[in-house]
Amino acid sequence: NQGLFDFLCMPLFHPRFRREFELDPAKVRSGAHTRSDLLLCGRDWNTLVVGKLSPWIETDSEVETERRNSEAALVQELNFSAYLGLPAFMIPLKGPHCANLARVLLNHIQTGHHSCMFWIRVPLISSDDMRDDIIENEQSKHTDDGSNDEKTWAWWHSFRTLCDYNKRICLAIEVGANMPTNAVIDKWLGEPIKAAILPTRIFLTNKKGFPVLSKAHQQIIFRLFKLEAQFIFTGTSRHSEKEFRSYLQYLEYLNQNRPAPNAYELFAKGYEDYLQSPLQPLMDNLESQTYEVFEKDPIKYSQYQQAVYKCLMDRVPEEQKETNTQVLMVLGAGRGPLVNASLRAAKQADRKLRIYAVEKNPNAVVTLENWKFEEWGDQVTVVSCDMREWAAPEKADIIVSELLGSFGDNELSPECLDGAQNFLKDGGVSIPCSYTSFLAPLSSSKLYNEVRGCRERDKDPECHFETPYVVRLHNFHQLAEPKACFTFIHPTTDMNNNRYQCLRFSVGCNTVLHGFAGYFETTLYGDVTLSIKPETHSPGMFSWFPILFPLKQPIPVTKDDDVVVRFWRCNNGKKVWYEWAVTEPSCSAIHNPAGRSYTIGL
Amino acid sequence: NQGLFDFLCMPLFHPRFRREFELDPAKVRSGAHTRSDLLLCGRDWNTLVVGKLSPWIETDSEVETERRNSEAALVQELNFSAYLGLPAFMIPLKGPHCANLARVLLNHIQTGHHSCMFWIRVPLISSDDMRDDIIENEQSKHTDDGSNDEKTWAWWHSFRTLCDYNKRICLAIEVGANMPTNAVIDKWLGEPIKAAILPTRIFLTNKKGFPVLSKAHQQIIFRLFKLEAQFIFTGTSRHSEKEFRSYLQYLEYLNQNRPAPNAYELFAKGYEDYLQSPLQPLMDNLESQTYEVFEKDPIKYSQYQQAVYKCLMDRVPEEQKETNTQVLMVLGAGRGPLVNASLRAAKQADRKLRIYAVEKNPNAVVTLENWKFEEWGDQVTVVSCDMREWAAPEKADIIVSELLGSFGDNELSPECLDGAQNFLKDGGVSIPCSYTSFLAPLSSSKLYNEVRGCRERDKDPECHFETPYVVRLHNFHQLAEPKACFTFIHPTTDMNNNRYQCLRFSVGCNTVLHGFAGYFETTLYGDVTLSIKPETHSPGMFSWFPILFPLKQPIPVTKDDDVVVRFWRCNNGKKVWYEWAVTEPSCSAIHNPAGRSYTIGL
Repeated sequence: NQGLFDFLCMPLFHPRFRREFELDPAKVRSGAHTRSDLLLCGRDWNTLVVGKLSPWIETDSEVETERRNSEAALVQELNFSAYLGLPAFMIPLKGPHCANLARVLLNHIQTGHHSCMFWIRVPLISSDDMRDDIIENEQSKHTDDGSNDEKTWAWWHSFRTLCDYNKRICLAIEVGANMPTNAVIDKWLGEPIKAAILPTRIFLTNKKGFPVLSKAHQQIIFRLFKLEAQFIFTGTSRHSEKEFRSYLQYLEYLNQNRPAPNAYELFAKGYEDYLQSPLQPLMDNLESQTYEVFEKDPIKYSQYQQAVYKCLMDRVPEEQKETNTQVLMVLGAGRGPLVNASLRAAKQADRKLRIYAVEKNPNAVVTLENWKFEEWGDQVTVVSCDMREWAAPEKADIIVSELLGSFGDNELSPECLDGAQNFLKDGGVSIPCSYTSFLAPLSSSKLYNEVRGCRERDKDPECHFETPYVVRLHNFHQLAEPKACFTFIHPTTDMNNNRYQCLRFSVGCNTVLHGFAGYFETTLYGDVTLSIKPETHSPGMFSWFPILFPLKQPIPVTKDDDVVVRFWRCNNGKKVWYEWAVTEPSCSAIHNPAGRSYTIGL
Repeated sequence: NQGLFDFLCMPLFHPRFRREFELDPAKVRSGAHTRSDLLLCGRDWNTLVVGKLSPWIETDSEVETERRNSEAALVQELNFSAYLGLPAFMIPLKGPHCANLARVLLNHIQTGHHSCMFWIRVPLISSDDMRDDIIENEQSKHTDDGSNDEKTWAWWHSFRTLCDYNKRICLAIEVGANMPTNAVIDKWLGEPIKAAILPTRIFLTNKKGFPVLSKAHQQIIFRLFKLEAQFIFTGTSRHSEKEFRSYLQYLEYLNQNRPAPNAYELFAKGYEDYLQSPLQPLMDNLESQTYEVFEKDPIKYSQYQQAVYKCLMDRVPEEQKETNTQVLMVLGAGRGPLVNASLRAAKQADRKLRIYAVEKNPNAVVTLENWKFEEWGDQVTVVSCDMREWAAPEKADIIVSELLGSFGDNELSPECLDGAQNFLKDGGVSIPCSYTSFLAPLSSSKLYNEVRGCRERDKDPECHFETPYVVRLHNFHQLAEPKACFTFIHPTTDMNNNRYQCLRFSVGCNTVLHGFAGYFETTLYGDVTLSIKPETHSPGMFSWFPILFPLKQPIPVTKDDDVVVRFWRCNNGKKVWYEWAVTEPSCSAIHNPAGRSYTIGL
């Protein structure tokens, strides 16, 4: 399909044909309103044509006759696009007042059985903001209220809020010659962008006379590629010696030359913004395929090997390497990857190890016993037991576990390792020795809508907002750098694993808060770490996606507001759960009180 | 029970007995924590004792040990009050930070099967605000941000929002010596006040040595009587020559001397804040009892009589009184009250009438035919027919109808009278000749909670927020004077009964918007009107309660914000419905798009 356009945007009615629905004589004008649908076959209308609303329609006019006439024309065009079966219909947002437009569109969506998508055309920056001739005083006033760059986002935010985040209403973002700041672009990327409109006038000309884009424009194109946006060219060709499709060819060139995805991005392909319930490996036994996927992580086990290696080197001096056999217990051995990593570390360190592989999943124990029979021999003792109940025959020098979830402690590593501490020698080492969860506020209408879609018929209607989700965060805007939430250290004398943390974030832009991204960092041993926090992410490690804590209600935030969130980790002896609440700029309800919607079984 | 106290508030644990839950040696201190429950029988604990939280408990302390110890003590006291089966437990709110208190309380409410109410003790004004020694600069600064008087309301608002408006959490308001402005008191009266705390120090002494209250304090007591609040006296007796119960006797004296309820209040007794679905008399046939109740209205029919009287006097000069027989059609005659009012008017005016009584409810027609047989005779023709389909044998001089709902046009009077206009003479008169609906923004956690409670299992989980309710508004705070919404005039040449109105209200205080109160005014004829708008309410008329349009989400409003709401009246030829949305200070979703949750059948 190279060099060929996928679809065409066109007005459904002639741009100069304004209709009158209430005034004589126009309302009784005879003849067809527009071209016949027989011009194309149904399949072509279905796939090749995106309709465009007539530009003269002003449904929010203050002049009642104009408003009523515009409403009637809008309904006519919406109905005609549904009749043609168009895949999408484009509607421009021209200013902050859009309540009546929103109402007519929502009414259209609520009635009838059409499936058309609605692309709301919004400029990245409003044309007011792009005028160079504003006198300085006015400009500084504009800048003071912080809305200069963000005006059109506010239009969109009002519109989609009035439409209650309807999933059939998405964005066609119009890129102008002037680019907004990166912060503003970041903000747009939390929105459901389905298309980008590129006027031909924003293109430059290269030495050979072909259309090209500035570096700044290329940057946004690259980011739009990641969201899989459609591109729409508007305006007449300004490179008249070239074919019109040279614009398209340039975009295809950019697409071929964009940075290659890294291992993590490749692994995550197809999982973008897809919500998963966090694993509960303590309550549920994992499946073979789950083990298989995680064992393929190219980074995690080499880091564990490195941690065990360094630990052995620290604990066993060169002169004791023949006499000192360290007792290492792998707690939650699964199908054996940590046993193998420990064996490799012992070989690398030239130290002696006696290993206990403790695993509560009897199915995985089958694999362990086979490993022992075929490879490990007497050096490894396989124990089919829950580590919290195991009566160990001796104490360990080193306990090795990988019980961490996307939010660090959310698979109950603290509770498990507290139990295991009984058979750790004084001065013994836990790998990992500590882990910390992190939280960052985020805005994402995509994720908000995904969570809304998780409602289950027989549960409380807000239950799905009181549950965290494991998700490859993609179409979202992180509003501030992550901050540390809960830390756990092993071994420890404090057996209280309840926590309470209050975090304050400066956001610095007008936005809307939809929830919090959760990450973790862990120190395995010494300077050997694992991290899924974006700033420190272990390169290429794919075993954990981030976690998302949603909010029932979007909370508006202005640029001078701080966001304050409170997180609790609670425990009633049978279950562990989180509760969370926003208390600034305004209070939310406390989410998941008493673990009513989500708990992690001990 | 006169002069006797109903219940006693007391601490469950000794005020000086601070417990330690984590620190030695206190945590292992032996002996009972508090008095034995055997002191009282179960029924007495159940009915006579309200527990008070120990004042040293600071669950939101920034010092972790204090916070954890306070949490443990709070849980202990909550559990003990549940064990005793106390009817209520009082918890003070001491400042703006209450997230952890809210969490522990919510957890307690979510678990266990107790039914205790929680009275949150909040001062009307914070003690900071009451200090006289603030230097003037600071004071003006305080006043500038508008929060001086409203600080403690903000504490409460945060707390109940964190608790998601839990119905078991209500207010015990503490009245101090200094009174806030009336605007602040108005605001509190939108809150679920279950008790008022009156320190003995706020009482004055009258000439006979008895405790009395200032006029300002009496005013608030009268308003609290209306909410049926409990009163709690605190402090030592300052009128030591009198018994302590002289405080109570004074309140009983005030209660006996409060203004007597008017006819409307008497009629509405028991219906306060009780939500009813609006009648649909066009779709459904009313019951006999419904007619009976409304026919008892002491005002409505005398106003109709007056309107018909004035109309007859205007249309028929003295010299034609024997020759000119006016044709009057009662449209929606029900069981006949408007026919009788018209007959009385004709007699009063000494003019001749020929009446058609048109009624679509065949059951009510039975009553009409009996009236005709027994009283009216040939002067009245009974027509069993829908007025919109009736082929009238002649045209009318006057059409009389009472098709109005609480929001004026919401029982489809416009559509019915448009149909009836066919048989109205040119120059004929409609009684009523016009009506206008009104809207006012309101705050009411009570009503918000009542609406939330209307969720029906098999409907969309937000359906009940997209429906108006007829309700005797009681525990609410009206945030601004009502403004006119939709007006209809009869007869008319404009048959388009769709409407769109945008209303802007200045609120002038920090508050939270929960919905809109709806009212109507109608001009029957000339200067004869009916009104349920509070400012102009027809005295003693009880046929209509106000209407409530709820919002799905409470919207925070600051004193400098305007509230802007948009209302639409829509029609698809089969049904009529309203849609509404708030667009300032922030956008709500559009409620009831395409009439998906509420319509009025034509």
